[in-house]
Amino acid sequence: MPKYKLTIEYDGSPFCGWQQQAAQPSVQQSIAEAILKFCGEKVTVNGAGRTDTGVHATGQVAHIILSKAWPLETIKKAVNFHLKPLPVAILDVEEVANEFDARFSAIKRYYRYDLIYRQAPLTFNKGLIWQIYYPLDIELMHQEAQCLVGKHDFTTFRASHCQSKSPVKTIDKITVTENAGLISIHVEALSFLHNQIRSITGCLKDIGTGRWEQGRLEQALLSAKREECAAIAPPHGLYLTRVDYPH
Amino acid sequence: MPKYKLTIEYDGSPFCGWQQQAAQPSVQQSIAEAILKFCGEKVTVNGAGRTDTGVHATGQVAHIILSKAWPLETIKKAVNFHLKPLPVAILDVEEVANEFDARFSAIKRYYRYDLIYRQAPLTFNKGLIWQIYYPLDIELMHQEAQCLVGKHDFTTFRASHCQSKSPVKTIDKITVTENAGLISIHVEALSFLHNQIRSITGCLKDIGTGRWEQGRLEQALLSAKREECAAIAPPHGLYLTRVDYPH
Repeated sequence: MPKYKLTIEYDGSPFCGWQQQAAQPSVQQSIAEAILKFCGEKVTVNGAGRTDTGVHATGQVAHIILSKAWPLETIKKAVNFHLKPLPVAILDVEEVANEFDARFSAIKRYYRYDLIYRQAPLTFNKGLIWQIYYPLDIELMHQEAQCLVGKHDFTTFRASHCQSKSPVKTIDKITVTENAGLISIHVEALSFLHNQIRSITGCLKDIGTGRWEQGRLEQALLSAKREECAAIAPPHGLYLTRVDYPH
Repeated sequence: MPKYKLTIEYDGSPFCGWQQQAAQPSVQQSIAEAILKFCGEKVTVNGAGRTDTGVHATGQVAHIILSKAWPLETIKKAVNFHLKPLPVAILDVEEVANEFDARFSAIKRYYRYDLIYRQAPLTFNKGLIWQIYYPLDIELMHQEAQCLVGKHDFTTFRASHCQSKSPVKTIDKITVTENAGLISIHVEALSFLHNQIRSITGCLKDIGTGRWEQGRLEQALLSAKREECAAIAPPHGLYLTRVDYPH
């Protein structure tokens, strides 16, 4: 039976997150329903990462199995049509080998967290960015973040309900950049703990505003104690931007 | 009595436009109501330009006269507070001389029109950009647009209900640029005819997709006939970005 890889973009605001839950609208369920309307097949939409309530994606990846083959453009257009008016779009459809698994074949996941320093209320990007009322030292945030790169016990940055077997993860890259007032934290890793990026972002924000002194992030990391983490950043600034697979 | 200059940003989607109209929510009226709630004064909010239904602004300017002086930060914060949850924000407040008039003192107005070439439905910027389903030749659009620079009879690009005394206007600058897939048309002039930028954008889009051949925009301009204009672009891609005043 043909297997398809979907690349998906969504505004997470109206959803309880990626994963299907009883009686709450999820991205996963919305796509499954659009597929059902398109071809009459009840499928499971297997995502690469389970984004939380309110978290967005510009490059989520999922796989589906259909009993009948369709032209790729037909799948894309028909599913997008049936997704309307939800803020979810299928950006790309590819046929993949039977071994492909959106979650288990992934070799790298990329997330971005967007912040803005601004006093006036947000207009165009309300719910799409974390608004900070104090100026942020972006260079310092970038510099201090570098201690997180590599293989570490990330217990400090792990939600109490995280289901990972181990708190040890490897961050490949973390950068803090600024473009026309928009501040972005980019993080790359094979996989993440639950709330890891939002926890790190909360600490980096406190470094940026000067609330945390230099070196405190590294101390917090080395302590491996959840109580050493700053208040976690809200979900609405976080985007799953890309998932890589072996060529 | 103190006179204040307000710099204003708004998402035009929920409004009938800038100008107050009976029984329809306008940006002008929303700001006047927020000022009333803040200080109990009933004022007219005099804008630099009357944006149409659905048109946005990142740099609209208006003036108000109050009977009592207030700290600038107080005006800004209080009016923003009372504007919630509308997508309107006061970005800046300055005290100005009695001669200042947001409309008549303006020496230049800047507009931007945003387009995107994309097949999948929009998610994050729905209602904030004109989606085009055919690829656009941006260099050609820019090149062909240059015939509009200078003083011309812009009858071709003028709404039938336009109230300007003369169809002759002077465009100081027009550019078509692309940044990460977002295509922007920037236009600068002292003043514009009604629907002038949306009319020009409609023609430039037809040039970009190849529907209009090279030279047709200049012919349309020289004809000074409204029927030579392409279908006008929708309002939701247009932004009033800046208004200049003498120093």
